[in-house]
Amino acid sequence: MLNQIELSSLSKGDSLDHFFLVKKCELRLTKNGKEYLSLELGDKSISSPANLWDDVAGFKSIKNSLAVGDVVKITGSMDEFQGSPQIKIEALRLAKQSDEVTPKDFLPKSSRDLKVMRKEFTSRLDKIINSDLNKLMNNIFTEDRFERYTSVPAGKMWHHSYISGLIEHTLEIVKICDLMCDIHPQINRDLLICGAMLHDFGKIEELTFEPVFEYTDKGKLLGHIVIAAMIVNEEINKSPDFPENLKNNLLHLILSHQGKLEYASPVVPKTLEAITLYQADELSAKVNAYKNTMQNEIKSGSSWTKFISIAGTDMHNHGIENQSSENKTLFD
Amino acid sequence: MLNQIELSSLSKGDSLDHFFLVKKCELRLTKNGKEYLSLELGDKSISSPANLWDDVAGFKSIKNSLAVGDVVKITGSMDEFQGSPQIKIEALRLAKQSDEVTPKDFLPKSSRDLKVMRKEFTSRLDKIINSDLNKLMNNIFTEDRFERYTSVPAGKMWHHSYISGLIEHTLEIVKICDLMCDIHPQINRDLLICGAMLHDFGKIEELTFEPVFEYTDKGKLLGHIVIAAMIVNEEINKSPDFPENLKNNLLHLILSHQGKLEYASPVVPKTLEAITLYQADELSAKVNAYKNTMQNEIKSGSSWTKFISIAGTDMHNHGIENQSSENKTLFD
Amino acid sequence: MLNQIELSSLSKGDSLDHFFLVKKCELRLTKNGKEYLSLELGDKSISSPANLWDDVAGFKSIKNSLAVGDVVKITGSMDEFQGSPQIKIEALRLAKQSDEVTPKDFLPKSSRDLKVMRKEFTSRLDKIINSDLNKLMNNIFTEDRFERYTSVPAGKMWHHSYISGLIEHTLEIVKICDLMCDIHPQINRDLLICGAMLHDFGKIEELTFEPVFEYTDKGKLLGHIVIAAMIVNEEINKSPDFPENLKNNLLHLILSHQGKLEYASPVVPKTLEAITLYQADELSAKVNAYKNTMQNEIKSGSSWTKFISIAGTDMHNHGIENQSSENKTLFD
Amino acid sequence: MLNQIELSSLSKGDSLDHFFLVKKCELRLTKNGKEYLSLELGDKSISSPANLWDDVAGFKSIKNSLAVGDVVKITGSMDEFQGSPQIKIEALRLAKQSDEVTPKDFLPKSSRDLKVMRKEFTSRLDKIINSDLNKLMNNIFTEDRFERYTSVPAGKMWHHSYISGLIEHTLEIVKICDLMCDIHPQINRDLLICGAMLHDFGKIEELTFEPVFEYTDKGKLLGHIVIAAMIVNEEINKSPDFPENLKNNLLHLILSHQGKLEYASPVVPKTLEAITLYQADELSAKVNAYKNTMQNEIKSGSSWTKFISIAGTDMHNHGIENQSSENKTLFD
Amino acid sequence: MLNQIELSSLSKGDSLDHFFLVKKCELRLTKNGKEYLSLELGDKSISSPANLWDDVAGFKSIKNSLAVGDVVKITGSMDEFQGSPQIKIEALRLAKQSDEVTPKDFLPKSSRDLKVMRKEFTSRLDKIINSDLNKLMNNIFTEDRFERYTSVPAGKMWHHSYISGLIEHTLEIVKICDLMCDIHPQINRDLLICGAMLHDFGKIEELTFEPVFEYTDKGKLLGHIVIAAMIVNEEINKSPDFPENLKNNLLHLILSHQGKLEYASPVVPKTLEAITLYQADELSAKVNAYKNTMQNEIKSGSSWTKFISIAGTDMHNHGIENQSSENKTLFD
Amino acid sequence: MLNQIELSSLSKGDSLDHFFLVKKCELRLTKNGKEYLSLELGDKSISSPANLWDDVAGFKSIKNSLAVGDVVKITGSMDEFQGSPQIKIEALRLAKQSDEVTPKDFLPKSSRDLKVMRKEFTSRLDKIINSDLNKLMNNIFTEDRFERYTSVPAGKMWHHSYISGLIEHTLEIVKICDLMCDIHPQINRDLLICGAMLHDFGKIEELTFEPVFEYTDKGKLLGHIVIAAMIVNEEINKSPDFPENLKNNLLHLILSHQGKLEYASPVVPKTLEAITLYQADELSAKVNAYKNTMQNEIKSGSSWTKFISIAGTDMHNHGIENQSSENKTLFD
Repeated sequence: MLNQIELSSLSKGDSLDHFFLVKKCELRLTKNGKEYLSLELGDKSISSPANLWDDVAGFKSIKNSLAVGDVVKITGSMDEFQGSPQIKIEALRLAKQSDEVTPKDFLPKSSRDLKVMRKEFTSRLDKIINSDLNKLMNNIFTEDRFERYTSVPAGKMWHHSYISGLIEHTLEIVKICDLMCDIHPQINRDLLICGAMLHDFGKIEELTFEPVFEYTDKGKLLGHIVIAAMIVNEEINKSPDFPENLKNNLLHLILSHQGKLEYASPVVPKTLEAITLYQADELSAKVNAYKNTMQNEIKSGSSWTKFISIAGTDMHNHGIENQSSENKTLFD
Repeated sequence: MLNQIELSSLSKGDSLDHFFLVKKCELRLTKNGKEYLSLELGDKSISSPANLWDDVAGFKSIKNSLAVGDVVKITGSMDEFQGSPQIKIEALRLAKQSDEVTPKDFLPKSSRDLKVMRKEFTSRLDKIINSDLNKLMNNIFTEDRFERYTSVPAGKMWHHSYISGLIEHTLEIVKICDLMCDIHPQINRDLLICGAMLHDFGKIEELTFEPVFEYTDKGKLLGHIVIAAMIVNEEINKSPDFPENLKNNLLHLILSHQGKLEYASPVVPKTLEAITLYQADELSAKVNAYKNTMQNEIKSGSSWTKFISIAGTDMHNHGIENQSSENKTLFD
Repeated sequence: MLNQIELSSLSKGDSLDHFFLVKKCELRLTKNGKEYLSLELGDKSISSPANLWDDVAGFKSIKNSLAVGDVVKITGSMDEFQGSPQIKIEALRLAKQSDEVTPKDFLPKSSRDLKVMRKEFTSRLDKIINSDLNKLMNNIFTEDRFERYTSVPAGKMWHHSYISGLIEHTLEIVKICDLMCDIHPQINRDLLICGAMLHDFGKIEELTFEPVFEYTDKGKLLGHIVIAAMIVNEEINKSPDFPENLKNNLLHLILSHQGKLEYASPVVPKTLEAITLYQADELSAKVNAYKNTMQNEIKSGSSWTKFISIAGTDMHNHGIENQSSENKTLFD
Repeated sequence: MLNQIELSSLSKGDSLDHFFLVKKCELRLTKNGKEYLSLELGDKSISSPANLWDDVAGFKSIKNSLAVGDVVKITGSMDEFQGSPQIKIEALRLAKQSDEVTPKDFLPKSSRDLKVMRKEFTSRLDKIINSDLNKLMNNIFTEDRFERYTSVPAGKMWHHSYISGLIEHTLEIVKICDLMCDIHPQINRDLLICGAMLHDFGKIEELTFEPVFEYTDKGKLLGHIVIAAMIVNEEINKSPDFPENLKNNLLHLILSHQGKLEYASPVVPKTLEAITLYQADELSAKVNAYKNTMQNEIKSGSSWTKFISIAGTDMHNHGIENQSSENKTLFD
Repeated sequence: MLNQIELSSLSKGDSLDHFFLVKKCELRLTKNGKEYLSLELGDKSISSPANLWDDVAGFKSIKNSLAVGDVVKITGSMDEFQGSPQIKIEALRLAKQSDEVTPKDFLPKSSRDLKVMRKEFTSRLDKIINSDLNKLMNNIFTEDRFERYTSVPAGKMWHHSYISGLIEHTLEIVKICDLMCDIHPQINRDLLICGAMLHDFGKIEELTFEPVFEYTDKGKLLGHIVIAAMIVNEEINKSPDFPENLKNNLLHLILSHQGKLEYASPVVPKTLEAITLYQADELSAKVNAYKNTMQNEIKSGSSWTKFISIAGTDMHNHGIENQSSENKTLFD
Repeated sequence: MLNQIELSSLSKGDSLDHFFLVKKCELRLTKNGKEYLSLELGDKSISSPANLWDDVAGFKSIKNSLAVGDVVKITGSMDEFQGSPQIKIEALRLAKQSDEVTPKDFLPKSSRDLKVMRKEFTSRLDKIINSDLNKLMNNIFTEDRFERYTSVPAGKMWHHSYISGLIEHTLEIVKICDLMCDIHPQINRDLLICGAMLHDFGKIEELTFEPVFEYTDKGKLLGHIVIAAMIVNEEINKSPDFPENLKNNLLHLILSHQGKLEYASPVVPKTLEAITLYQADELSAKVNAYKNTMQNEIKSGSSWTKFISIAGTDMHNHGIENQSSENKTLFD
């Protein structure tokens, strides 16, 4: 278990006795022809550059073997170069088994308790009444897949881009969808909830997240939407009695959930459940993205972020006191 | 009180003894040079064309005075012309006071009980803790304005386009926003809920709905977003101590709630409350629009509507049985 | 075998003794309250409206049973109504088995010989050297699927919208792709040709064409791109040794072949074969669409078509003599 | 009064005895751990970087207090670093009251005489015949507001981005609008001229310009269009007899003057005056933007600027002699 | 010389003794099989439909020879069909030479005096000081071309779509450009004015206007921009000493004057003169288009037009009295 | 004749005795005030930075005269600076006539044999049967123009951006067009092939390529499309009997070949030949662009390029063995 001050909380001059994940690693030459390693080191808060000079003990033994994804133990201090923080290394060694640290300890994680989220998910899944859907969902969520499903981030950037981000995001959408079903009895609740649970399911094969978040070749060539559709199609075809109409409508929810062709959905929402899922996904994703951006990007001494190009605006943290934040379910 | 079978439920050959609202009215000539009135008559379900020929008793006295917005009593029958329903008039007279019918009886209305909705709104408003906002909201919602606010439709077409559509739509958004505040304590609940209640408030001056839904000159020249901002600005300026920061953020919610410049918002959402309001509005509006379109536009003998250009697709009513529709608040 | 002058070649006053396919059929009332059938009748050249009046012999027996997709025998003549051709019916009966006509006889067909096209296709398929691909293709193209594949049009409108349009279009693309492989040895020929043959394969389930071209529910909800990807995925998964890399690249060709997200491809072309296939498809589709539009839409007494909205322009038939049309493979 | 050679006219090696405005100021460390101030210094022509090293007299006393917006007196020389000009500081002190310089002296200014422009504006305003409008304009342009209105730039970048840029830009538009009224008597001259004078009026609250041009929180959250509409609305509401029709049309001019929704106008131009104002604004803004860009951005040794992304092109200064530039009002 | 009440001023029942231009002409059959001519007849105000029945004297002799562009003399009366005006023909004959009417008499014309406009143009042209440009302009504007240039409309629809519309539009642009040159001495006046005079010059070959406005084959295949560039290029090449730089800049003005690639300019404005010309053209075109649309399209009993799709809005005629319309050149 | 290892094949430490083309050249000062030349040197493979210090023999004599486009002889070695290759210069001299090297030796070239391409072109041109076109083409392709036409690249970046790129690209399009004519006899082969040969002909005046690829002033102000149209127009006008119809259609092919207005074509394709040419151009350009990008931009240790913004994607080199690459013209 990792127990050290986060990199983002350290200031110039602070001494270091830390484990870090190696995020970049290149062997270079100085102008004088000496070798050094140009590194990027980080924990789950942020990353910083660092140079490992050839006069640090053990440089020779490590220079050709150190790789992205390794965990290292550093002693040194926080320094600064051209106005940006930099790590000054006095000694470096690879982490040992006895250190009990793994690369996963250095990745950002959902702030929600994973066990609680897993329980919420399975408990909601048990309430699916439609027997075809209930059985299908249990077949899809094998133990292995559920393990991966509850670990994967919802994306590489922008929203829920941290370990267990997908399950956190999915549960939020499921709650929004259940509220919409309460208001509109015309919506088929079982169909919609299954669609919500499966909509980003393909990300378990689209993304890797150890040691760093990255897209797989399969993910780039096929996309998570089609990956999910192909898996669900195969699982459904194992039950010859699964209704054709239900199958097409469930697949339609997965395929159309990004709402527009230009957002990479091959079909647009054509059913009441499909439009609900798309808009619930948008609501959850955008609110999370703004929240995270404002937590990380507000400029010091300002209440504004820089211009965020994916949102097409800068963002403002007004700082007005939230007197009603504790009141839950006010609307009864 | 109007007590008659709805026009949409009548078939060819059914006899008529009905009140209708006059929605169009033009004096024309037949090829043979005879005068007749070309009419469109309707109730809150639908409208149909009708011709009033010069051999109907009283034609002369009525031909120059009948106007859009009048209520008339018809006897006759349902007919058909070139494959579409048409009303065949045998006798027509203007409604009298003793008939106790008003044009409003012929306009589509929200299916929710108005008293319940008014109570939900005021009850939620009372829970605003921030005293500046609570006082402001009570100043804005005078009795006259509240009367109009709870009558106006949310739009002329597409979503919630019926009497009391605005209050129904607003309450749905408020519920979605409260759920988002439950999940994300970073959202300022009082600010967001006030923004939600005011976001379409300008529609009370943008739209008229008696005898037919129409935009006012002011509505077309200024738009409901700026109308609302100007009223709220005036009400705030009556309280010199109202915090400037809170004022700008509340106005920002109104101004940015359509989310994109090309949707007529003069600024895009820049705060956490603003993005939440925009996406909650989208969720409520789109689900309502799809629901209404599918109720009214499914082609007979098909499970599909025609192509709906505003949605960019045709829509599908799959007809799968909704086994879980009765379960409320499943997610606990 | 149908042997009659095509409807498009008939003029006002010509007498009729023809079989036609019923394309629309509605029972209506005249102003005087008499029933009649409002029909659209056609062969593979064009369609024309026709009214079947109640004084035609046998009207009563047929009025409630006649349906879209029936073939009827008409005697009568070509008439005109408000400047457009109309069929005047003097007698009408349903086609009998002994007439030896089927609805398919009335659908537009590719002008190329189907047997020749089938032979071209199988002969080219046999030249696939990569054994994984060769085996896969033979598994996919079962007799049943090949039968359907060689019948289906490539679309409902715009290009190759006639029986056997898909196979004609595919063969043209294959030829273009082979030429590009001759010029660029960096392109993987087997992979590209298989992608070309499979790119629109999903249309066998997306479209029906008897008695009229129409999209299936499955086609509208999933789209032909995903349908094809799901079938190919299933067939590949039957061969556990099929290389993962090859599988992803073949599926990528199908998924990206419409070239842009807004054209409903869930991924854009990322490989050399994918960009070649997309551009070859465009070349074949656009040339065919312009050719057909100019054959059918040039205004009489003009060298121009009306404005064709899908192309964003009107089109011009310059009529310049084609002195080199007979020279083939000039470039040697 | 500032009397020194402009920074943009100095070359490498020139000695400096100049006042400059501090535009950026950060305390940093060298690689050797010594403190220095990383500065950006400028006058109204351009800005250059400069480092204040710790061996310059008085460094200690100034290092924690110097701030953006201060005016400093420098002695030193023009230097160069990696091909770009840099200021070499030998001595630095803060400006004293007796120096008689203010930050405003270092901001770019309109090249037109401010007194002349103020006179042109008030003289044109006096010619408004419509008494409602004339009175309103005099109420809006209080002394304080007029002072600010005649100082503020028309924007932060692109066009008229200098002190008194707004009044210069407005007068140009007024002249263009008067010409259009001469040609088209259908245009309501008083209404149009008042709209022209008020169209960017909200910039007095949207922008600050001392010590540097910046958007205010209010400006970012509401935008200058709505700010202006709210002020004008309040001023009109003080005169209960002001005609409703005139009010809506004047507000419409302000709201629609950016011409398109995607340019942040909440309504598009719907009247003859509105379309005239939008196009006159475009003409003035674009010509000024091109003129300024070409004055500042032509690459040395070339007749072309770099690619200007806001214009979507590079720009060309052809250098063809302007033989008719002196002729005014040629068209009589 | 035509001396008759305009068609747009006639009401139902008025008797007719008028010359009209034939704008459409088709021989058709009635339901009973009788021949009649379906016509569209008009003067320079508007057009109306008319049917010539076979019982009108001379029907037989005229039915196969009457053609679009013929002028006919009608006696009859104004009638109405399905709510729209229609001409009822009692007698019809072709116009004779002695009638002294030509098709041109029936086309809409500029409201400005053509002689005055020709004089304004030549007088302004004489003030071009640059001798290369002055000589070039005189070579381009041969008597024949000037005749055509001063007759052609500026477009088929939308703005200045009437005889001599191009010269009226050009003179307005020239005045705007001269004003901009007065304000900005950096603009090369001679170059800009020549560009303004030539910018739509290609319309003399792109459009025909007798008997009706229509695009030529050349106009559709090449467009007026390239037609003008090719003519100007040829005229310049006759003077070997014409400066290359001046040539490219003059051609650039013609090519870029539509401002954006998507408006069919093959290059965007890259010089100060080019951006001025584009924006002046926009100002003149849009103001004229709005003015004409409001004159012709305001719905009766309303102050609004229908939705005008090319403008993306409906338009409003506010009817506010124009107290300053008589004041010219107020800004002195 | 240049005979040396390509710059792209050299590694850190390799000694240099090479000729290079000077691509950038600036005289600068070090921090210590010493002069040096900051250079970019390259051959046809790639370019690298290099500094010429003042202690290299002959620095003084060369520092003010060395210019972009010069060829120099370097001795030194390959070095590295901040992770990127850099040339370390020990001695430098200008190339002499006796070295027999020219700037052209250092530009990237088509990999096809130029003589073979010239022969292919003239041989295909001789097969134009239409005598008007055959004569015109021979008049256009004078020896001088053909020399330039066969040297110029097809673009500055993206596709065929190397010496003789235009002729290579054109021949590929001609082959594709001939294949389309084989398949579709409705296409006028002579017209299409002439259009293909001339479509990018204007690039001979739009681009310079010695010593570096650059756009001319004329190219930027007029564009290659209009340049080509003006030349072809002039050549056609020398033959008064050239058919007007053929002229307009040939010019239309040049003008419309970029397919869309936003791609800078002033008209869109309106004929069968025009749509064929546009799509054949796209096919050739995109395949070449992907091929070149993948050859140059695959990241080391990866099968992916970085994100290529002009293509809107990263690209993938799958590395699947091409078993059929040797088979030509498989489709017979």
